[in-house]
Amino acid sequence: MRVLGIDPGLTRCGWGIVDGRPGSRPTAVGVGVIRSSAELDLELRLLELHTQVTALLREHRPDVVAIERVFTQNNKGTAMGTAQAAGVAALAAAQADRPVAWHTPSEVKAAISGNGRADKEQVTLMVTRVLGLSAAPKPADAADALALAVCHVWRGPAQTRLRTAALTGGLGAHVAPRTLPRWQGVAR
Amino acid sequence: MRVLGIDPGLTRCGWGIVDGRPGSRPTAVGVGVIRSSAELDLELRLLELHTQVTALLREHRPDVVAIERVFTQNNKGTAMGTAQAAGVAALAAAQADRPVAWHTPSEVKAAISGNGRADKEQVTLMVTRVLGLSAAPKPADAADALALAVCHVWRGPAQTRLRTAALTGGLGAHVAPRTLPRWQGVAR
Repeated sequence: MRVLGIDPGLTRCGWGIVDGRPGSRPTAVGVGVIRSSAELDLELRLLELHTQVTALLREHRPDVVAIERVFTQNNKGTAMGTAQAAGVAALAAAQADRPVAWHTPSEVKAAISGNGRADKEQVTLMVTRVLGLSAAPKPADAADALALAVCHVWRGPAQTRLRTAALTGGLGAHVAPRTLPRWQGVAR
Repeated sequence: MRVLGIDPGLTRCGWGIVDGRPGSRPTAVGVGVIRSSAELDLELRLLELHTQVTALLREHRPDVVAIERVFTQNNKGTAMGTAQAAGVAALAAAQADRPVAWHTPSEVKAAISGNGRADKEQVTLMVTRVLGLSAAPKPADAADALALAVCHVWRGPAQTRLRTAALTGGLGAHVAPRTLPRWQGVAR
C-alpha cells in the first residue's frame, strides 16, 4: 500500500509518501513541503496547493491520501486556513479517484511513538528511525506528513475493517426495535 | 458588474447571482442551493460542491465571486466543513480566473438592511425588496447568497479602492521611519 500523507497548511503544507503494510517496516518514497506566500490572495494560495497536490497524485499514484484532521480549538488564528488547505487537498484526492483517510494528531503521535502527546522532536526522531532515514526530515511539517502516512499504513486497514463492520451491523451498530426477540416486545 | 455570491456550507451551500453597480437597483440573475448528502465521504461532498460551482462560473461568467468569511468561534461543530466548502468555492473561482472577495456576515447584513445584527427574516425581506422579487428566495442560504452578492455590488468597489489606496501608501499605510520629517528624526 502506498500512502500520501498531508499535513495541511497554507504557508507550509507538508507531504510524505510511504510504501508499506501493517506489521512490516515502511519505506519512504518522497517527502517535501508545498509553500505559498502570505502576500498572495487566499484563492491563489489554494490554487497553488491544489496544483501541487494534483501533481504529486499523478506522479506517485498513492492508494490512499491520509490528511491530518484539523480542530477549531487549536491555533485559532490559522485554523480556517488550515481547514481550507485540508479541504483542497481532499478535493484533489477525490478528483484523482483516491480515497481520503483522516487521522487526528494524537492518533499519529500514538502510532509513531507510542505516546499520543509526543512533542515534535520525538515525532521527527521516530519517523527518522522507523523509515531508516539517514537524516531527519525537515521542516517539522514534512516529518509530520511522513508520520501521518506511516500511521495510516499501520492503523488504516484496521480502522477500515472496524468501519466496515460497523456499517454492516457487526460492531456497535444500532439495533432496530424490530430485531429484538419477541419476549422483549411491547405486545407480549 | 456581475457577482456570484456564495454562502458556503456542505449540507446546503447557497448561491445567488446579481447584476448591478453602486447606487443603482441590482437585478437577480439566478439563485439556488447546492446540496450534498451527509452520508457521503467528505472528499466526495467537496467534489460535488466544486463541480457545481465550476458549472455556475462557466454558465454565468461573473466578474467577481463574493464568499462569506467564516469565523471559528461561530457554530463550532460545522465551522470546519464550512471553511472547507468556502475554500473549495474560492479554488473554483481561481481556476476560472475570477477574483474572490470575502465579506463578513455583519457587513452583508449592514449593507442589505442597514443593521449589522439583522436576523435571517429581515435579510430575506430586504433581499426580496431590493431585488424586486415576486417571492422570497428560499431556503435562507439562498437568500443569504443573494444578499452577499448585493453587498459586494454596493460595497465591493469602495472596498477595492480603499485596499488599493492602502497598498500604494495613500491610506493608513505604515509610515516608514525614513519618511518622517527631519525635525522628528533622532539625529536632530
